[in-house]
Amino acid sequence: MTDITPTDIPCFDDVLAARDRIAEHVHRTPVLTSRMLDGLSGATLFFKCENLQKAGAFKARGASNAVFGLTDAQAARGVATHSSGNHGTCLAYAAGRRGIPCTVVMPRTAPEAKKDAVRGYGGRVVECEPSTSSREAVFAEVVAETGAEFVHPYNDPRVIAGQGTCALELVDQVANLDAVIAPIGGGGMISGTCLTLSTISPQIRIYAAEPEQADDAARSFRAGHIIADDAPETIADGLKVPLKELTWHFVRNHVADILTVSEAEIVAAMELIWKRLKIVMEPSSAVPLAAILKNPKIFIGQRVGVIITGGNVDLRKLPF
Amino acid sequence: MTDITPTDIPCFDDVLAARDRIAEHVHRTPVLTSRMLDGLSGATLFFKCENLQKAGAFKARGASNAVFGLTDAQAARGVATHSSGNHGTCLAYAAGRRGIPCTVVMPRTAPEAKKDAVRGYGGRVVECEPSTSSREAVFAEVVAETGAEFVHPYNDPRVIAGQGTCALELVDQVANLDAVIAPIGGGGMISGTCLTLSTISPQIRIYAAEPEQADDAARSFRAGHIIADDAPETIADGLKVPLKELTWHFVRNHVADILTVSEAEIVAAMELIWKRLKIVMEPSSAVPLAAILKNPKIFIGQRVGVIITGGNVDLRKLPF
Repeated sequence: MTDITPTDIPCFDDVLAARDRIAEHVHRTPVLTSRMLDGLSGATLFFKCENLQKAGAFKARGASNAVFGLTDAQAARGVATHSSGNHGTCLAYAAGRRGIPCTVVMPRTAPEAKKDAVRGYGGRVVECEPSTSSREAVFAEVVAETGAEFVHPYNDPRVIAGQGTCALELVDQVANLDAVIAPIGGGGMISGTCLTLSTISPQIRIYAAEPEQADDAARSFRAGHIIADDAPETIADGLKVPLKELTWHFVRNHVADILTVSEAEIVAAMELIWKRLKIVMEPSSAVPLAAILKNPKIFIGQRVGVIITGGNVDLRKLPF
Repeated sequence: MTDITPTDIPCFDDVLAARDRIAEHVHRTPVLTSRMLDGLSGATLFFKCENLQKAGAFKARGASNAVFGLTDAQAARGVATHSSGNHGTCLAYAAGRRGIPCTVVMPRTAPEAKKDAVRGYGGRVVECEPSTSSREAVFAEVVAETGAEFVHPYNDPRVIAGQGTCALELVDQVANLDAVIAPIGGGGMISGTCLTLSTISPQIRIYAAEPEQADDAARSFRAGHIIADDAPETIADGLKVPLKELTWHFVRNHVADILTVSEAEIVAAMELIWKRLKIVMEPSSAVPLAAILKNPKIFIGQRVGVIITGGNVDLRKLPF
């Protein structure tokens, strides 16, 4: 594990700066409620709908903060990342808003819809083989060729500060929260949430929720050091990636617990949200509700913020 | 056609009273936007999301206004209606909030999910044969037996005034609208919209949108009198019912035009909204966007409010 220095860790002022920097490029997303889901859980749930965010995911926040924080000289060389998920799409979105080049390295086996999403925002897709070594080699070539700024999907202080603007909105929209729960993959959203809430509302407990079949963060949390799994399989495809140094810092210091749920529990919670909240969202985003329903004793009687992280799902391949 | 008297026609003060009466029973629904849909249409579109309304449809507004406007003596006898759609569900919802009985007469052939929705809010379903004569006979029995107050799905001044609260919110949420477009079936939403906007924002043009296969409102509009079709068939199943005296009054006096679209255009617009706005909504609610995309000359360069009327759709039977 690489050591991190205190200067790598974003502070709350970075969240405030991010909020102002990205204000005109992201939505202030609505918070939805359902008496039926409150009844099922015994809690009062406030769903922060980042599936309704620009480009369909909270990652538009972090990506926009990184892109609009570049100097003009940096921006002229563009940005690059490797991602077959929402970060690639959202980085292309943000780069498109600034009018700068964006390259996303993706495995050639990634769904065409994901590649089209990047291209739809004006980004360039460069394909690699579906292996870490190929991805790293191809990505190094891209950066050498373009001089583009690398924006990591989550292990980047600019990205974490950007994701922290979501919790800032949530506490402004909903008073007296007792807890907030979000899915955890690489930990970018959870880290931003920790960064914001530990400063302005330290009494709010922060829970992370994870698929049993990709429970590396939960095992890391219990072991006290990062454990990374090789290619876990789960329907919650946004949550397969491991923690990294920066996100581990926030998880270790500020998360109350990491709760895990089965694939069937994820699908059941997803269908409940579609039916009751009338929103289109990804399996990854159903993991927190599944965790609440599985652990009623933790949340009963409490006011709980639930982050719905993204809505980019194939409508022709629904799991229910 | 029955004559109506001026006292049957709700006035704007009824909308303001409805707003206060139903405030704690309905959501102030969010307005969503999409740069991609703006690009496709050439207009700036503001989607008023009544699919995110209580019980999943704007009809919670009118039903709540009717239910909470009853005297205690009336309320004790309960409410009744005939509806196999959202009005039945929403009336059961509102009655449940007030703690009074609600009976909904539905054809025995109606989907079980619709019956379960009424029962889920504590309503009673009484089945009739799928014919107008059976429905009327069974409904008369229910009223004779219970003394319940009949709340018509749309031809009722309390219902129209309640639906008018939606446009009141919309003009508060979005400044300088040029036009508003909503689907038209029986005309309750359009009538409420006309009632509100003709008073407070008469410069906003009001368009109705209708399936070609159930175009009775459009033909009525051109003929100058109500034309009712017998059992039209369309995927937009909320829009099969005909205009009645009260709603015809508003349509005739305040609607700029009624635009019609094909079944294929409805399905295409529905998929666009699911994909781009990330919301679950009914085929009926896609009819306005389909009409905008079909008639770009009317809307180009304009700021247009688009009412997404409901979200109660069978997730296992999507048309795309």
